[in-house]
Amino acid sequence: MREREHQTREPSLIEVAAEAGVSTATAGRALGGYGQVSPATAERVRAAAARLGYRPNGLARSLINGSTQAIAVVVTDVGNPFFAQALRGVVDKVRTAGYEVLLFNTDSNLDAERNAVRVLLEKRVDGAIIATGSPADTEHLDSLRDARLPFVLLDRPVPDRPDVDSVMIANAASARTAVRHLLSQGHRRIAVLTEAGRELPYVADRLSDCRTMRPSAARLAGYVLAMRSARLDIDPALVVHAPYQREIAARAMKKLLDADPSVTAVFATDNVLSIGAYQAIQASGRRFPDEISMVGFDDQEWTTVVRPQLTVVRQPSYELGARAAGLLLRRIANGPAWDRDADDRPDPEHVELPAQLIRRSSTAPVPVPSF
Amino acid sequence: MREREHQTREPSLIEVAAEAGVSTATAGRALGGYGQVSPATAERVRAAAARLGYRPNGLARSLINGSTQAIAVVVTDVGNPFFAQALRGVVDKVRTAGYEVLLFNTDSNLDAERNAVRVLLEKRVDGAIIATGSPADTEHLDSLRDARLPFVLLDRPVPDRPDVDSVMIANAASARTAVRHLLSQGHRRIAVLTEAGRELPYVADRLSDCRTMRPSAARLAGYVLAMRSARLDIDPALVVHAPYQREIAARAMKKLLDADPSVTAVFATDNVLSIGAYQAIQASGRRFPDEISMVGFDDQEWTTVVRPQLTVVRQPSYELGARAAGLLLRRIANGPAWDRDADDRPDPEHVELPAQLIRRSSTAPVPVPSF
Repeated sequence: MREREHQTREPSLIEVAAEAGVSTATAGRALGGYGQVSPATAERVRAAAARLGYRPNGLARSLINGSTQAIAVVVTDVGNPFFAQALRGVVDKVRTAGYEVLLFNTDSNLDAERNAVRVLLEKRVDGAIIATGSPADTEHLDSLRDARLPFVLLDRPVPDRPDVDSVMIANAASARTAVRHLLSQGHRRIAVLTEAGRELPYVADRLSDCRTMRPSAARLAGYVLAMRSARLDIDPALVVHAPYQREIAARAMKKLLDADPSVTAVFATDNVLSIGAYQAIQASGRRFPDEISMVGFDDQEWTTVVRPQLTVVRQPSYELGARAAGLLLRRIANGPAWDRDADDRPDPEHVELPAQLIRRSSTAPVPVPSF
Repeated sequence: MREREHQTREPSLIEVAAEAGVSTATAGRALGGYGQVSPATAERVRAAAARLGYRPNGLARSLINGSTQAIAVVVTDVGNPFFAQALRGVVDKVRTAGYEVLLFNTDSNLDAERNAVRVLLEKRVDGAIIATGSPADTEHLDSLRDARLPFVLLDRPVPDRPDVDSVMIANAASARTAVRHLLSQGHRRIAVLTEAGRELPYVADRLSDCRTMRPSAARLAGYVLAMRSARLDIDPALVVHAPYQREIAARAMKKLLDADPSVTAVFATDNVLSIGAYQAIQASGRRFPDEISMVGFDDQEWTTVVRPQLTVVRQPSYELGARAAGLLLRRIANGPAWDRDADDRPDPEHVELPAQLIRRSSTAPVPVPSF
């Protein structure tokens, strides 16, 4: 076989057409797979393209047929195992339909998110999946609607955009289940470690709106609902605030455990906070689970290697991504919910995936007081 | 403010030009930021574009200036925390230079990887970072060179492509350090849990080539080197093969521990295998670390929550991604190593990042035999 010559310039479609003896338009149709070309002609063009080493240009094709066969995924932290798993769900699902994924990471920074929206529009993706870091400040999402781009909200609802499709975890309900499990074992002084700790009054006033709250607030609402169902007052001292940083979370939880021996159970509302809470309990010197119980959130691998194994709320992260992708693919095919005549407008879809309580050995009946 | 009218069609560049009273070519230059336009004209065109709600088309701009401002990242499993962290490193780094990331996940499937290479070329990305799942079968990488696309190998070397830039962990050296740590504590019967277990004869014959081996093979080479330095023969029974699946890995390790009480230490060569080995030791009934020691690979969060805390080799996953991205950006700016005149060819870069042994409490001196 002759050694491939070093290319100094790429062959153009015009040269392919000349080599095949057809018009440039015909060559474009044959290689792009659009319009009408006879099988014999298409074969001749493909052979000519192969001889010349012609590379189809996806950009030109996208300009012609109006589709880039790519979607954008905007997440706050792809290094977080929850988003890494959700992203895999998205990638696996859209690949089956021949779509690629353009990835944006925002670190929950509003400017980064606005920039992501601007760039994904410029890149002319066919749709977007967005886990917004700032559900209260979402004017930038309007530009997606102005551009009539189908998009789906992932994991984070946006209260003032009820007509945008969303795929969420049933956050309040699953948090409620977790706390009820602790209540059923006799616990009354149940602490909650949450990133929404500072919003307790706001959350407690709006318990019926918990589907529009961001995950951490909705989970705090679930805690409040469970406690109230058991006719327990909410003690603000038991609501421990921490950002999504393991060491800070561990210190905040440890401080409460040191200060208040009446606390017999802890509910942590996300995977980072769970590892922090677990560390705090280990450092507290209390016998675990005999003297203190814990339920964590997100069934990470470590939860079955620690002793005691951690009782958790299992989020279907991979499925969350896959469902969002499936919904988006349908919208790309059929048009977004808001982009129809009033009579023929499909309802927006708000998918809530259930999370499951996995009982392990970190929860035990409340210890009998020693007096 | 007047409510925005529902758009039925996007305004074209022609309309923007007419609105601004300039030629289409001038309008294109003003909005695309290429060529010469006077500041006053550019401002008039931008104002016209804003009035009409014109969206710049990144595809058209990319066709004109030959850059998509996007790179491709091809990994085997974005759900694996190692790759999730490396991916964050890439995204953070390229964002600072205004590049976006097109993500491909291959599941180590060769067809999926070939397809990713084909598609990323069609999408006309400006460069690629590839963690190949099949280092022995890489003809598809030739198409990147034919297209003169800069690319960098991440984490997995390709033996027969020494002129392609690569960013790797110092796998053999760090494995050797881990095993020497166990040897220094008096251990002699040291098991290794590895995905390259079936290649022991091959690896043992090519110890000087370990920089061109895939990570699992290079780490096995490090084990062999450390054992030989201590004048110990390699017992094939101590080399336990397992795929990157936690439960299978745990069973394989448990089987050896049950069968051979002389084993006093375990070295696991990746994060999935580490969690499996840890579980196997827990299930073995041996006192840990008094009767058996372990060193794991990859400093995942769980390793400090378990008891005993796990001694590990810490891989700089985030930095690995960031360094690969930095190298790629330089190649995009200056051209790939192979694409120069012979006199002026920059050498390919092969970056090896050191991994660090973090000593915790899962390693202890070899137990005194009880006879």
